[in-house]
Amino acid sequence: MTTIGIDIGGTKIAAGVVDETGRVLAQTRRATDALDPEAIESAVIACVAELRSKYEVSGVGVAAAGFVSPNRDGMLFAPNIAWRDYPLRERLSRGIEVPIVVENDANAAGWAEFRFGAGRDVHSMVMLTLGTGLGGAIVLDDRLLRGAFGVAAELGHMRMVPNGHYCGCGHEGCWEMYASGRALTRAARNALITDEDRAGRLRELAAADGGKTRGQHVTQAAAEGDPLSRDLVTELGRWVGAGIADLVAVLDPELFVIGGGVADTGDLVLEAARASFRAELSARGYRPEAQILLAEMGSEAGIVGAADLVRH
Amino acid sequence: MTTIGIDIGGTKIAAGVVDETGRVLAQTRRATDALDPEAIESAVIACVAELRSKYEVSGVGVAAAGFVSPNRDGMLFAPNIAWRDYPLRERLSRGIEVPIVVENDANAAGWAEFRFGAGRDVHSMVMLTLGTGLGGAIVLDDRLLRGAFGVAAELGHMRMVPNGHYCGCGHEGCWEMYASGRALTRAARNALITDEDRAGRLRELAAADGGKTRGQHVTQAAAEGDPLSRDLVTELGRWVGAGIADLVAVLDPELFVIGGGVADTGDLVLEAARASFRAELSARGYRPEAQILLAEMGSEAGIVGAADLVRH
Amino acid sequence: MTTIGIDIGGTKIAAGVVDETGRVLAQTRRATDALDPEAIESAVIACVAELRSKYEVSGVGVAAAGFVSPNRDGMLFAPNIAWRDYPLRERLSRGIEVPIVVENDANAAGWAEFRFGAGRDVHSMVMLTLGTGLGGAIVLDDRLLRGAFGVAAELGHMRMVPNGHYCGCGHEGCWEMYASGRALTRAARNALITDEDRAGRLRELAAADGGKTRGQHVTQAAAEGDPLSRDLVTELGRWVGAGIADLVAVLDPELFVIGGGVADTGDLVLEAARASFRAELSARGYRPEAQILLAEMGSEAGIVGAADLVRH
Amino acid sequence: MTTIGIDIGGTKIAAGVVDETGRVLAQTRRATDALDPEAIESAVIACVAELRSKYEVSGVGVAAAGFVSPNRDGMLFAPNIAWRDYPLRERLSRGIEVPIVVENDANAAGWAEFRFGAGRDVHSMVMLTLGTGLGGAIVLDDRLLRGAFGVAAELGHMRMVPNGHYCGCGHEGCWEMYASGRALTRAARNALITDEDRAGRLRELAAADGGKTRGQHVTQAAAEGDPLSRDLVTELGRWVGAGIADLVAVLDPELFVIGGGVADTGDLVLEAARASFRAELSARGYRPEAQILLAEMGSEAGIVGAADLVRH
Repeated sequence: MTTIGIDIGGTKIAAGVVDETGRVLAQTRRATDALDPEAIESAVIACVAELRSKYEVSGVGVAAAGFVSPNRDGMLFAPNIAWRDYPLRERLSRGIEVPIVVENDANAAGWAEFRFGAGRDVHSMVMLTLGTGLGGAIVLDDRLLRGAFGVAAELGHMRMVPNGHYCGCGHEGCWEMYASGRALTRAARNALITDEDRAGRLRELAAADGGKTRGQHVTQAAAEGDPLSRDLVTELGRWVGAGIADLVAVLDPELFVIGGGVADTGDLVLEAARASFRAELSARGYRPEAQILLAEMGSEAGIVGAADLVRH
Repeated sequence: MTTIGIDIGGTKIAAGVVDETGRVLAQTRRATDALDPEAIESAVIACVAELRSKYEVSGVGVAAAGFVSPNRDGMLFAPNIAWRDYPLRERLSRGIEVPIVVENDANAAGWAEFRFGAGRDVHSMVMLTLGTGLGGAIVLDDRLLRGAFGVAAELGHMRMVPNGHYCGCGHEGCWEMYASGRALTRAARNALITDEDRAGRLRELAAADGGKTRGQHVTQAAAEGDPLSRDLVTELGRWVGAGIADLVAVLDPELFVIGGGVADTGDLVLEAARASFRAELSARGYRPEAQILLAEMGSEAGIVGAADLVRH
Repeated sequence: MTTIGIDIGGTKIAAGVVDETGRVLAQTRRATDALDPEAIESAVIACVAELRSKYEVSGVGVAAAGFVSPNRDGMLFAPNIAWRDYPLRERLSRGIEVPIVVENDANAAGWAEFRFGAGRDVHSMVMLTLGTGLGGAIVLDDRLLRGAFGVAAELGHMRMVPNGHYCGCGHEGCWEMYASGRALTRAARNALITDEDRAGRLRELAAADGGKTRGQHVTQAAAEGDPLSRDLVTELGRWVGAGIADLVAVLDPELFVIGGGVADTGDLVLEAARASFRAELSARGYRPEAQILLAEMGSEAGIVGAADLVRH
Repeated sequence: MTTIGIDIGGTKIAAGVVDETGRVLAQTRRATDALDPEAIESAVIACVAELRSKYEVSGVGVAAAGFVSPNRDGMLFAPNIAWRDYPLRERLSRGIEVPIVVENDANAAGWAEFRFGAGRDVHSMVMLTLGTGLGGAIVLDDRLLRGAFGVAAELGHMRMVPNGHYCGCGHEGCWEMYASGRALTRAARNALITDEDRAGRLRELAAADGGKTRGQHVTQAAAEGDPLSRDLVTELGRWVGAGIADLVAVLDPELFVIGGGVADTGDLVLEAARASFRAELSARGYRPEAQILLAEMGSEAGIVGAADLVRH
């Protein structure tokens, strides 16, 4: 039976009809006004109506950034949208008759990888989405770990460095501050000061981008072969691997999947992560080693995962 | 139905008959020679025979320190006993006819707390056993997390401090080096050098103990009210809380249970752990907070947990 | 013989006639336009002319933030004023006939404390100016340490924490990021997120200040007794003491003098600094301990020190 | 005029006649019994008598590990010899009629480099002796920095890592624990556990050395080209460079000189130190950069420096 998956982002809503094999049969989009929850609901309902006019669907999965309530019916808190203890399912059900499930977007993407992507052959895995921030999803014994209060797998907020970089969450040393697009942006800014001679390409890209330094410049320049940018991505990869070693000590999963924009650097970030993971893995040699792979589902992962979670 | 639980330590084997409510109906013990696996097996078999002569039992659970194989039939590696890829279940089954399960000792203790102790009312919890080292057990959705390769919950080897204290595992900064009896011993040794004026009571206890400084001296002196020792336990408690904050970001459980010898300092370690956990918890205020409690099962936790795991 | 001392800040120029005992006999001020070096020079020359109309002076000492050239005739670089390899002495000498010396402002303040303030009885000391940033001055064997390239005592950029807080200098973990007004501002911002219940007074002060959180709010609230603010100042004091312990290992001076706006918290920051210094001091017990005192010269320290340095 | 320099080590005394150009004209040696201060004194007196029978000398400089009293007449404390507040000069003067000066051994070695070795053309430098521990010497404006209490330049005890490796001094994270022979020994031991596949050469050298792992094995294997050992020396060099960046922020010297056994790895440690120094140097580009060179005086540096210090 086909279902609909919806990915509510800060600037747009993407919706798709997904079949049981994870294939997206049709898609549609709407712009989002993050300050207007009612407009978001109308847009979601309109997307669903549009898709249901052509496909029969048995449910709707909705993914968004933020803390989802334990029973998956609403949002406790969202960083980008004006939701606080918000009964999203009940609101949407006014315009949608089929069952609705709400899920965190990183969880949805992780579930898509687990079911149809890099993790389709394993029973336990951790997904790391290296976007602007660092999102996580955990699957154990074929089940998505949701947590007692609905907010498990907030992996970006594990503390990697006591007294380390300030995080927007108010704490210091969060993993996200060392392994995300935001980390890359900051590392690039610092390199423009401390490594001026090698920062020519990053300066060019910033100049062409209104004078602003962005993490994407680093991934782009690294792909072109810029030595400084490759160093910055490698350093980020080392922090990814260090955190993976910590997660192995806790969860002992079969697989880690790395996705998000930073993962577009491919082997560069992957090799650095693998090397530092191996260097930090406790009791290596006495235990099998978890694999680290790149994500396979691309930008549709949120839609596919949300759609599939309605069935589970 | 009653079962037998067996706790194989470095110096002794403790065995007990346990009923379905977690009550120990009878116990027996034998000395262990860690270098002689065959002698250990004979002792285990003798314990079982002795107990079965008086009680009817439907299975035997065996707990020991080390890495247990994923299917719970043997030991991949033990730190204190000469076991490497050792088929313990098969060896024991030569002298024991009922079903046998092998489990890591920290997991067994954690399971006992989950079933009958501080965690009996929750569905997810993490147990931290602060003994000489730092052992962990994780229960999620009423199930013990064993890991894809059988070695989940090796919590003592999460890295808390990059380039931090050397651990016997070969790595740096492991949680165990900041939150265990070993950490306390080392902190006491340092305080004898750097805080001489306040170290009088620890010096006395060391003198009375053949000149050796031990973590137990600190917990004892802290219980007596010695200010330096109370500071050292409080500092240890802070590291416990910091690690708990990391685990909440990953697992989001309802409860943490603190056991082991260091937990005998009771409120002192508990309050410090709670305070630093609260200070480090990400997104506090937008989420319910996990509880932190002391263990309730005492030194029989290993026996009780192992016995109960045969039934699951 | 009297001399003139001039303190060139980002927003104003303060000038004074100072006698050989460090007494300020007369003062005058002008506003500064940091983007216009010529206007600054005219203002300095006008100040000198005004003061010389009433006092006979044998020289002029000029203090400013930034890197001073090794022979004290110009500025290599200033953070707040448009000076790069700037021949300040030569420019000023066009309108001032007496000898001129240029000095870093933190050095001038430290020299004033050494000659007439908290350090008047010692032969070696380190001054820490905890203002917005963290400035330093070092006096060894009765001489100001200027460094081979003129830029010694940039103490705020010692690295206290590998991979620690980002500093404007492009590096991570600089002492200044843990022990300065800037550090206090950031700590307050984080506490507003992570310690909401206790942050009432800081919220009030921010509200009354256009919604902006400032380090000064923390020092003010700490002086009023606000528990959270006192904790933040104490934590800052701990970092001050930790850095002092490092400097003792290098320089072994008799005295540390703490000045700048953060020092207005008096005993609070002082006691925390002393305690953590003592806890971190290597080989304590086998060596005399350096003293830590508050500065005595107040806001005129820059003028007095600059004036006195012309004589040395 | 020629003088005698004496280097008192834990196992032997080396003495030499040194001329004003730093040339050693004659040498002699005696074994040391570290537990017997009187025997050490007799041996020093015998060395001096032997050398004076052939050369006319105007003074004797004595170098030893430990804290030297501020006026250079005795030892406050020695780590390897039973000296506590010990009037060494007075004791030696019973058998030696010419003037005697006592100096810390790292200071003596640094002074030799400053006068006749790598630092002969500069006015300020820091010497780092990477032996078993990490010793330091500081020369500013052509003068050896002795400190207000005689114990400046204890550089090995600057804290590089909060909560870092335990040091024998009772503190955590001392530079010596990351940049010394001791650091190399420990790094090698850890690598034997965590990097087994690449540790073949170190295992061989340990096996040939009674099963003990030593820092010297790493420097030897690195010289042979062993990849793991080269990585370990490079990592040590990085910490050397990081500490140098801190010292530049404090002292701004012209030159750093690296000596001691670890410096035998030559370019390997030097290049790593230079690279990390450059990466960590604050305000690079706005200031000239200190040089980093290898020591030139070899194992006689202590003798030569002690002999020359009698003249200053």
